[in-house]
Amino acid sequence: MLAYNTGRRLDLFEIRIMIVLFTDFGADDIYVAQIKAVLLQQAPGTPILDLLHGAPNFDPRPAAHLLAALQASFPTGSVFLAVIDPGVGSARDAVVLEADDKTYVGPDNGLLSVVAARAGQVRTWRIVWRPPMQSASFHGRDLFAPIAASIAAGNLGKDKLEETFGLSVRFGADDLAEVIYIDHYGNVLTGVRAGNVSRGAKIEAAGRLLGYARAFSEAPAGSAFWYENSAGLVEIAMNRASAAELMGLRVGDSVRVIS
Amino acid sequence: MLAYNTGRRLDLFEIRIMIVLFTDFGADDIYVAQIKAVLLQQAPGTPILDLLHGAPNFDPRPAAHLLAALQASFPTGSVFLAVIDPGVGSARDAVVLEADDKTYVGPDNGLLSVVAARAGQVRTWRIVWRPPMQSASFHGRDLFAPIAASIAAGNLGKDKLEETFGLSVRFGADDLAEVIYIDHYGNVLTGVRAGNVSRGAKIEAAGRLLGYARAFSEAPAGSAFWYENSAGLVEIAMNRASAAELMGLRVGDSVRVIS
Amino acid sequence: MLAYNTGRRLDLFEIRIMIVLFTDFGADDIYVAQIKAVLLQQAPGTPILDLLHGAPNFDPRPAAHLLAALQASFPTGSVFLAVIDPGVGSARDAVVLEADDKTYVGPDNGLLSVVAARAGQVRTWRIVWRPPMQSASFHGRDLFAPIAASIAAGNLGKDKLEETFGLSVRFGADDLAEVIYIDHYGNVLTGVRAGNVSRGAKIEAAGRLLGYARAFSEAPAGSAFWYENSAGLVEIAMNRASAAELMGLRVGDSVRVIS
Repeated sequence: MLAYNTGRRLDLFEIRIMIVLFTDFGADDIYVAQIKAVLLQQAPGTPILDLLHGAPNFDPRPAAHLLAALQASFPTGSVFLAVIDPGVGSARDAVVLEADDKTYVGPDNGLLSVVAARAGQVRTWRIVWRPPMQSASFHGRDLFAPIAASIAAGNLGKDKLEETFGLSVRFGADDLAEVIYIDHYGNVLTGVRAGNVSRGAKIEAAGRLLGYARAFSEAPAGSAFWYENSAGLVEIAMNRASAAELMGLRVGDSVRVIS
Repeated sequence: MLAYNTGRRLDLFEIRIMIVLFTDFGADDIYVAQIKAVLLQQAPGTPILDLLHGAPNFDPRPAAHLLAALQASFPTGSVFLAVIDPGVGSARDAVVLEADDKTYVGPDNGLLSVVAARAGQVRTWRIVWRPPMQSASFHGRDLFAPIAASIAAGNLGKDKLEETFGLSVRFGADDLAEVIYIDHYGNVLTGVRAGNVSRGAKIEAAGRLLGYARAFSEAPAGSAFWYENSAGLVEIAMNRASAAELMGLRVGDSVRVIS
Repeated sequence: MLAYNTGRRLDLFEIRIMIVLFTDFGADDIYVAQIKAVLLQQAPGTPILDLLHGAPNFDPRPAAHLLAALQASFPTGSVFLAVIDPGVGSARDAVVLEADDKTYVGPDNGLLSVVAARAGQVRTWRIVWRPPMQSASFHGRDLFAPIAASIAAGNLGKDKLEETFGLSVRFGADDLAEVIYIDHYGNVLTGVRAGNVSRGAKIEAAGRLLGYARAFSEAPAGSAFWYENSAGLVEIAMNRASAAELMGLRVGDSVRVIS
């Protein structure tokens, strides 16, 4: 999407430009600052960005597609701390993923798997290190944040990871013909990449057929349309109104491309 | 309001102290981090403040009055990235405004015009630069953020702007006798500057007449009053209760000063 | 909780590692950025963390217990700017508290008193300095922020404080057998420290008796349980559901430990 992605492959032990948080911990809640306290201490000076803390709870699949689309807006060398982890405290692995020019730290529950499946070059590691004190419920702070900070600071101990032959849970590279996110305007993001859809195609959603518009300002006020959003996805929207509310759409609802 | 505003006029090519975001992109949504990623790369080290991402959607007029009041709390040399832009993708211009000691980047849809009308010294430019890749819907990230970052970093290319004879859409310097914002306590901010209102005046709103109180603690619990808020505006409030909810007030509702 | 708390006692005039905000100013509202503008100018380079801006309005007691539990996640030398201040503009004092290895700035209304009561070493000061311009309603920006910034920057003028013999309003060190916070998942935090409760104990809340589970993944989906949360408190939760909503629990509701 943006011109400053160079595609250069980074080494896991190189200092990084920023840490990007993508979680379901709640932007207004008590958890994010505790993660940042760890990052600030162990990777001082590295900027921390809050990409999303309201990723759909309890289901990593739509979030995996959202992350795969949004990562393109962040520069080479970004480290993503991606935690949507309903299985925290269970046996799922904690992993590190290098996918082309960026690095991801999170649970091995599929969340990182769409990024991995679409990348040209991929390496994966299991996190074998365990913190001296680990709460049962907040691995984001106790386990994932120290690893992400070490990667950002370029001082990850090599014995903390064990290379693996890929992720265990994989959702694949294909588009997801579902609603994956609804923004605060009520715009409806799907898991379909707009590059795969001709401008003459219709999108079927909630029993309606929607045509294409290039921009909000080209659509008549109050009528729904689809367009290529700023992350490259097919998005359903209405000019100055909430498409989600007026069409009754929710995360997980199916959509269909009709060419 | 605050003592550290020196009123010194800044040059457009001088390094700035902070970037202040004032948008309707949603504090908890996926857009702000994408803007910050651009700012962090192109103006590394410049602090970024989130003043408001919940500015009233779709209407720049109340937001223009809110911005004009709030800017006083930020220091000389601040760069405001102000984007409330229902016309994104249409023909409205993108502009830079220097108003006294601060700089503003945003759409020419009136949002910056109250700041401009109240400033002693004003210069305006049209942004003629276009990014190599520009999405149809997210000029905040693709167009406004790179310009704001260049100004903050003191390395704006002179050919990116074209000086103009003022803004196209102008709301004027006068107070706006309307509700312009409702905060999370339910306090009701108006576009009337308290310096223009005598302490003996009443404020009429939602069919009621409200008297003045100096502070929340001086008003009886549960009764509505008006006071001069921390941004210098007439604000309608109740002690330990939501005035907006109990009086049924919303952004855009009229108020009247009765002297 | 975390290993990096050294317990070393800090001097009030030593430069600090981070400023932590704990307020009821609203994470998405217009107030926090105004506070940060002051901190950024007067303590440039000090990271600022947003721990919570949605602390229960109008009642410092549950917030005092929440703060006492959460401070453990922040490192030695943190400065907390803690403002929940329904009495702003009234006669309550503004204070600075040193409690073991951290410093707290806020109103003397009980908010800091649980931290103080549980600390090994405590010193307290009244803030006698007044800013040149002080709004009646926003002491967070005008009074508390400059003091917190000076402490963080290690350049607090000694004449700005007057040492006192403790806080005026004191809630004491004991656990609070009430709901003190509900997070965005609907998990219900109590003011009971889990270290004081045996794993065989039941928690009575909303007329139900809840047993212990170590982790979310160990509890059957849809059934309520209690566990030791990541801040060391007894927390009532349900696996993949909102305990607060399904049990009808709110901040201030009583709970009981049944051994």
